[in-house]
Amino acid sequence: MNKQKIADYICQRIEKAGVSHTFGIPGDFILPFYAAQTRSSLKTVVMTHEPSVGYAADAYGRLRGLGVALVTYGAGGLNMVNPVGLAYAEQSPLLVISGAPETRFRADKPQLHHCVKTFNTQHDVFSHVTESTTIVDNASSAQAEIDRVFDTTLSTSRPGYLELCRDMVNTEIEVSERRPAAIDPNSPAAQIKAHALKEAVGEIIERLSQAKQPVLLVGVEVRRFGLKDDVVELAGALNIPVVTSILGKATFPESHPNFIGNYFGQFGGPAVKEYVENSDCILSLGAVMTEMETGGYTAKFNPDRLMQVTASEVQIGHHIYHGLHLQPVVEALLQSDLAGRSNFTIPTVLAEDIKGDPADKQLTVSAMIERLNDLLSGPRGSDFSIVTDTGDCMYAGMSLKTDIFLAPGYYVSMGFGVPAAIGAQIAMPERRPIVLVGDGAFQMTGLEISTAVKEKLNPIIIVFNNASYAMLRFIDQQRDYFDLPRWDYVGLAKSVGADGMRAESSDDFGRALHKAALSDKAFVIDAILAGDDISPTLRRLTDHFSKKVKAAIA
Amino acid sequence: MNKQKIADYICQRIEKAGVSHTFGIPGDFILPFYAAQTRSSLKTVVMTHEPSVGYAADAYGRLRGLGVALVTYGAGGLNMVNPVGLAYAEQSPLLVISGAPETRFRADKPQLHHCVKTFNTQHDVFSHVTESTTIVDNASSAQAEIDRVFDTTLSTSRPGYLELCRDMVNTEIEVSERRPAAIDPNSPAAQIKAHALKEAVGEIIERLSQAKQPVLLVGVEVRRFGLKDDVVELAGALNIPVVTSILGKATFPESHPNFIGNYFGQFGGPAVKEYVENSDCILSLGAVMTEMETGGYTAKFNPDRLMQVTASEVQIGHHIYHGLHLQPVVEALLQSDLAGRSNFTIPTVLAEDIKGDPADKQLTVSAMIERLNDLLSGPRGSDFSIVTDTGDCMYAGMSLKTDIFLAPGYYVSMGFGVPAAIGAQIAMPERRPIVLVGDGAFQMTGLEISTAVKEKLNPIIIVFNNASYAMLRFIDQQRDYFDLPRWDYVGLAKSVGADGMRAESSDDFGRALHKAALSDKAFVIDAILAGDDISPTLRRLTDHFSKKVKAAIA
Repeated sequence: MNKQKIADYICQRIEKAGVSHTFGIPGDFILPFYAAQTRSSLKTVVMTHEPSVGYAADAYGRLRGLGVALVTYGAGGLNMVNPVGLAYAEQSPLLVISGAPETRFRADKPQLHHCVKTFNTQHDVFSHVTESTTIVDNASSAQAEIDRVFDTTLSTSRPGYLELCRDMVNTEIEVSERRPAAIDPNSPAAQIKAHALKEAVGEIIERLSQAKQPVLLVGVEVRRFGLKDDVVELAGALNIPVVTSILGKATFPESHPNFIGNYFGQFGGPAVKEYVENSDCILSLGAVMTEMETGGYTAKFNPDRLMQVTASEVQIGHHIYHGLHLQPVVEALLQSDLAGRSNFTIPTVLAEDIKGDPADKQLTVSAMIERLNDLLSGPRGSDFSIVTDTGDCMYAGMSLKTDIFLAPGYYVSMGFGVPAAIGAQIAMPERRPIVLVGDGAFQMTGLEISTAVKEKLNPIIIVFNNASYAMLRFIDQQRDYFDLPRWDYVGLAKSVGADGMRAESSDDFGRALHKAALSDKAFVIDAILAGDDISPTLRRLTDHFSKKVKAAIA
Repeated sequence: MNKQKIADYICQRIEKAGVSHTFGIPGDFILPFYAAQTRSSLKTVVMTHEPSVGYAADAYGRLRGLGVALVTYGAGGLNMVNPVGLAYAEQSPLLVISGAPETRFRADKPQLHHCVKTFNTQHDVFSHVTESTTIVDNASSAQAEIDRVFDTTLSTSRPGYLELCRDMVNTEIEVSERRPAAIDPNSPAAQIKAHALKEAVGEIIERLSQAKQPVLLVGVEVRRFGLKDDVVELAGALNIPVVTSILGKATFPESHPNFIGNYFGQFGGPAVKEYVENSDCILSLGAVMTEMETGGYTAKFNPDRLMQVTASEVQIGHHIYHGLHLQPVVEALLQSDLAGRSNFTIPTVLAEDIKGDPADKQLTVSAMIERLNDLLSGPRGSDFSIVTDTGDCMYAGMSLKTDIFLAPGYYVSMGFGVPAAIGAQIAMPERRPIVLVGDGAFQMTGLEISTAVKEKLNPIIIVFNNASYAMLRFIDQQRDYFDLPRWDYVGLAKSVGADGMRAESSDDFGRALHKAALSDKAFVIDAILAGDDISPTLRRLTDHFSKKVKAAIA
């Protein structure tokens, strides 16, 4: 037991999770925590608007295992519900720490500023978009409650919400040493789980042994639970072809000889789709079968041939093993007899190769992808990470050859890109983010380049400027309410201290990219596209979604 | 009974409420409603980011009696929780219409994009920040549910939430004629209410008749329930001095001979405070005694001498009449014998007159207020409305002489100003908004000037540029995390098609204001302030709040 102030205990838990920076905006109810944080090694990156705080902390968490957002009560916290919802949907370990009124005000001052209905409104709202919540209003339970929210956030890789009453920040508590709950391997429950694991892994191995054309589908949970290296080793040992899902993109290195492409149902490249859907044995590790992961439910997996391992269960064919986690399954497969002795064929890479048409006078999405892949395949390729917003920037971005790729692939919230790039570069300073962002999304949060400038970060931001919500236009039809004003994005960048260049042709874009790569500043490329130019992936996707929308419009 | 598509019925209800424009951002789940809306007279102002949608629709509703926001599911709706919370706290009639997945997907497609935990997540979140909610998923109950949410929004002047499943948009329903529930004045319940009203009004008149120094405190509900003209008439008939609260500012015309100032507890001007707190009879009409309305609970009202009339009750001294509404009380007072025969003294205006010091070389907040009051008192003064964000811009703005004043006076959410000005000018095209906004708040949502340009609106936006969250600095102390980057606000304005001018001295500011007044474009004045220059009101306010924060930091 030692005495510690509650804020110091929280900072220590954040530090122990390997976090160096938090993200936030100060406000009166969180000021004491900001002040307390100066006693720790932590530093807050102050963003310009709370939605960006959420995106940046989320991105940091995706790369470092925990992201932390520090906001004030009401006007701060409630302005971050959407990014926290995104983090929940995409299983990102994002911890929200919100200031709150003193415990004594909660009793007798009902109409305090930043308060909506009751003092519990914000907590109740966050309970719908997080895995765990607490209000720290009591010294005696503080440690247990803080530990519960931290532990749940880390073990589930889902957001947690910690509301800290202002008078609790510097309240001293007796901190007891934390001992992880010891699991007795001989307990009946542990024995049952071990038997289930053995049975499930036995089945997986048996099916793989019989397979002629197996494929390993690597999904997002592999990254979320820190299993990337294990899965790379497993793919090598099994000598099995690997595809990744959209949320799982770059979870498996795309330069690995076993990698054959991204799978995205009928939205993705046709060769990968054909290979996967003709496979007689699909082992899915950590892919979550959301609408987006399955290409709008167009994935044609034969359930007889599918084995799905996730953080909560194993499904083989039509039967389910509840309560098994990805991690022990991967470990058991690595230790199995099959490892190192299978003899499958790896096809040549089947990924759709997107190239610009030299005849195009105006810049096209395909030409940008080709130029970017030249950069990413070059000697400095691994100096970069890729961060995309949603829209064609994301769907086209799936064709980029990279080993770090962040995108809101399932929840598809616009505005993620630029703030997420700030989180990404703070998390991995050795990687310069290349951000692909549509003009509509840039208009939401793009001015966070100001925060990049302030923090001496230098993302390269490519604005897909087609002066419209292009995706909506392709899903519906031309409507005046899809038109976006054409901003002078370069002028805008310069007004907040960044640099930039406009590109109207493929050659312009090449020059702009070259100049950006040489610059040590945040750099915006205003990429002027024709309104009807979209990537093949987006064309397939909008063809699909437009049927639903048009049915509802009729 | 007539047949009508659900969307057409909704549009008709919006039109009948006197609304011409909705505010929104399109997205796939709301596209059919946007398309259906083109069959009506309604037009949507498309903003750049959902928080701004909420603020703009809120401001429109404050001026026109109903504001409507049209957003998509998940990434759209959940990005608007904070402005809806603001509207709830400040009693603004804001109706949120959100698209949603088809009813059939809600049954069997659990992991649809834009979905957080379950299909009900967004609805459940909004239930915490609105007065009424519904999910329109059923033709047979659609009209009743839509009516309930509309009626509640209008009658309570609090936000409502209407979630519309995509396949319901063009579903036909049998619409029955709406007959307002007839209230029988002879029913026992109506008789009891009439007696209660008579007793309460009798008491109010008796107390007023005995008063030597009465004062009428006019609050926000007077505007929300459309009673401004009645209250002006009443003040004249009673010949009583009038003060307004911060949320109620300009609900009573400041040029009226009975107006003596804004009351804001110890934060406000000392003469008004002294007059009100020495009054032997305070009649409060529609003021809600929140923390902010009472100057951080510093209001020294003697409860023996206070009479509070709100939308839900009348409190006189220490006793309460439940269930009485402001409106019949005001009507009864107007018809009372006292009207036209009282003989109170109206003191000369006690409002604090803020003037710049001619010796100041650098621009000060006081100098700006003086220059603005010159403009507002001039021949074209009533061509303008005042919209403020929160921060010193709002507290200093309380000294402006205006009859249209919009501010987030209680919930104090940053980012309100610029988007609210768009809503205000759409609502009242004859009034050009002058927006007072801090640099921190401008960095959140200021780029909505792009939407102003697109809609050919021309607010004059004054950025209080002190390169910091100044209010937090005065509450706490100088901290590096309160520093804001100094943007080139004029360059930024130009990059999105607006105009602007920088002002470093009082004369500069006068010239900039003159140029802005002559310009027909949206115009940004970059007002460069010394870091330690704040208004007298903010100084009193931060002195008060800093005690609480410093107690928690220690």
